[in-house]
Amino acid sequence: MSPATTVIDNIGLLVTNDLAVGEAPLGIVRDASVVLEGSHIVAVGPAGAIADTRIDAGGMCVIPGFVDSHTHLVFAGDRSDEFAARMAGQPYQAGGIQTSVAATRSATTNELTRLATARRDEARRAGITTVEIKSGYGLDAANEVRCLQVAEHFTADTTFLGAHVVPREFEGRTDDYVHYVCNEMLLAALAHSRWIDAFCEVGAFDADQCRAVLTAGRAAGLGCRLHANQLGHGPGAQLAVELGCASADHCTYLTDADITALAASDTVATFLPATDFSTRQPYPDARRAIDAGVKVALATNCNPGSSYTTSMSFCLALAVRDMHMTVEEALTAATLGGARALRRGDVGHVAPGARADLLMLAAPSYSHFVYRPGVPIIDQVIEAGRLVVRSDHGPTK
Amino acid sequence: MSPATTVIDNIGLLVTNDLAVGEAPLGIVRDASVVLEGSHIVAVGPAGAIADTRIDAGGMCVIPGFVDSHTHLVFAGDRSDEFAARMAGQPYQAGGIQTSVAATRSATTNELTRLATARRDEARRAGITTVEIKSGYGLDAANEVRCLQVAEHFTADTTFLGAHVVPREFEGRTDDYVHYVCNEMLLAALAHSRWIDAFCEVGAFDADQCRAVLTAGRAAGLGCRLHANQLGHGPGAQLAVELGCASADHCTYLTDADITALAASDTVATFLPATDFSTRQPYPDARRAIDAGVKVALATNCNPGSSYTTSMSFCLALAVRDMHMTVEEALTAATLGGARALRRGDVGHVAPGARADLLMLAAPSYSHFVYRPGVPIIDQVIEAGRLVVRSDHGPTK
Repeated sequence: MSPATTVIDNIGLLVTNDLAVGEAPLGIVRDASVVLEGSHIVAVGPAGAIADTRIDAGGMCVIPGFVDSHTHLVFAGDRSDEFAARMAGQPYQAGGIQTSVAATRSATTNELTRLATARRDEARRAGITTVEIKSGYGLDAANEVRCLQVAEHFTADTTFLGAHVVPREFEGRTDDYVHYVCNEMLLAALAHSRWIDAFCEVGAFDADQCRAVLTAGRAAGLGCRLHANQLGHGPGAQLAVELGCASADHCTYLTDADITALAASDTVATFLPATDFSTRQPYPDARRAIDAGVKVALATNCNPGSSYTTSMSFCLALAVRDMHMTVEEALTAATLGGARALRRGDVGHVAPGARADLLMLAAPSYSHFVYRPGVPIIDQVIEAGRLVVRSDHGPTK
Repeated sequence: MSPATTVIDNIGLLVTNDLAVGEAPLGIVRDASVVLEGSHIVAVGPAGAIADTRIDAGGMCVIPGFVDSHTHLVFAGDRSDEFAARMAGQPYQAGGIQTSVAATRSATTNELTRLATARRDEARRAGITTVEIKSGYGLDAANEVRCLQVAEHFTADTTFLGAHVVPREFEGRTDDYVHYVCNEMLLAALAHSRWIDAFCEVGAFDADQCRAVLTAGRAAGLGCRLHANQLGHGPGAQLAVELGCASADHCTYLTDADITALAASDTVATFLPATDFSTRQPYPDARRAIDAGVKVALATNCNPGSSYTTSMSFCLALAVRDMHMTVEEALTAATLGGARALRRGDVGHVAPGARADLLMLAAPSYSHFVYRPGVPIIDQVIEAGRLVVRSDHGPTK
């Protein structure tokens, strides 16, 4: 007996992100159906396919689940006061991270798990079916491992970010801390990480320090990512290319040379516009990067200091309005772009063999993510073939 | 036997907007309870008040329901293509309204009612407990009346906006259309309207035409409001003051003289930042207006062309990030400010005698509307004493 199949039928507008399956842009199939078997997609075609169970999409739009390739979901403590002070005129500085480090170290593992679970559930309701999670609020071997172990409950894409900032106990001894990250911490974190990351920024780590951390991680078998060019121009973007990083994240400030280097590489530029919103920075010039051939992704950067949101819809709206991406470019960046930034071929698109991660919208088109800013248009979320979110009161159809 | 009472108890942070009830700013009461009887509030005080029924706020924040003083909820048709074109570089022009006029005239009254009901429900889930609704997509006597009759199902604050744009059948004969608005249309609309409004803008109506419309409405007993200074500098804001309008709406472009006039008047400047977002205009300089003493409100301007959102939360985030209002100023503007713009004393605040419109947040502070952009933090909505929205999966608390 073969496993049970489910068809999502009567899809008015299906986004597949696969030009072998549908038409440009976005691999669109109209009046479509998608057949799932277990956790994967087995067929994509015209409406009316037969399966054991049928879900009716009501003629609305269905898209791939969002792939959020940059989050910091494991932390304790609140930084809303720092946020309010920033909105009243204080600049964002990397040092605020210490507040979260103190709270995270003090929290029990049960408490960290409870908080991260609530955030992962919130992200799921926001349509995020794949999530990357970084450590970086532990900043010693035991606490980084603790945070990575919590993150492992939610994703295989865990990232060791010991080089987030220099913890207070190493103040003035950054090179000593980098040595600790590259040796004792990395050794402890290794079994719980797929990726290694560093924050290349004034107030955090310089290019040589980041190179040391990522090179050590790579030698130990981890993939590389880098926080680059968030608060000003700097060496991060080109360093990410030099080290073969899967992703250079933020990229708010890019020179022509940075763009040329990114465009000639496999490194994805991951924009985090909710961060630029929440730190009142300028938005990155995505138009210029895309027109030059840079591969791009959009991610939430959910974290308590600079971007406490799980709303990929909000990121899409900002990407179109303030970064001058088309709606189609933004949607691709939040799905397939995120998958590329994680070097994942199984998610971010809708095709036979892909994981069955689908968002059923209470809207006829994905353009409503931007046309209707702030309105919750995600009606149902299917993750690995399971209906995990069901809203019974979508917006106006 | 006295009517049943309900206490909302264990409120960690209560915003009352009433300095006779709580402390500055926002009339804050900590560890509070609110007692309701029927549709109204009968007591506000420390936690632990006794009533027939008890709702536990879980130590979270409770605020007054949002008062959305500017919407166009009654219409048919979709303008997402126009929106996408605009995001690709085309400017917003008042003329796009004609698309909605054609669709609205073609729709049955049942269809208009169904669509408006869905939008009103969506707005309620977004925390809007009081809503103003304008006509303006009928543009002839019969269709304007039809739209106002639909609007009357949802609010006493219905607004006759015959002077939205000149309909095609009057093209080139604006003064003839104004005469029609001031006479036959006004006579028909009168029984279904509390307010009269006009769109004072290049491409719509000039100052003399708007003055004629509002003066006729006022003589017939309607209150006055005006769409002013949306797309550029113009006479609207000062005309609104001259005519004693309750509100001058948009106010994206204000001169020093406009601000001086508004500050010396009872006319509220109603900012509509989701419109500036969706038309990619600059945001109004709310800081300058507030510092000069102008009374301000925030509203969604929910309409299919320039701002298709019911999300007051989104407006709050924009008001703080992009208009440089404090979180407290933005929250006041979206509640008490909206009530002032509608000259309503019964809503927008929490005090004995006020209508029982309350938002129970899944957050410890109202600052999370801005700190957590795009995240749905409204957990329960109480409107006129009834629990009308209940989320069983709020965000992280």
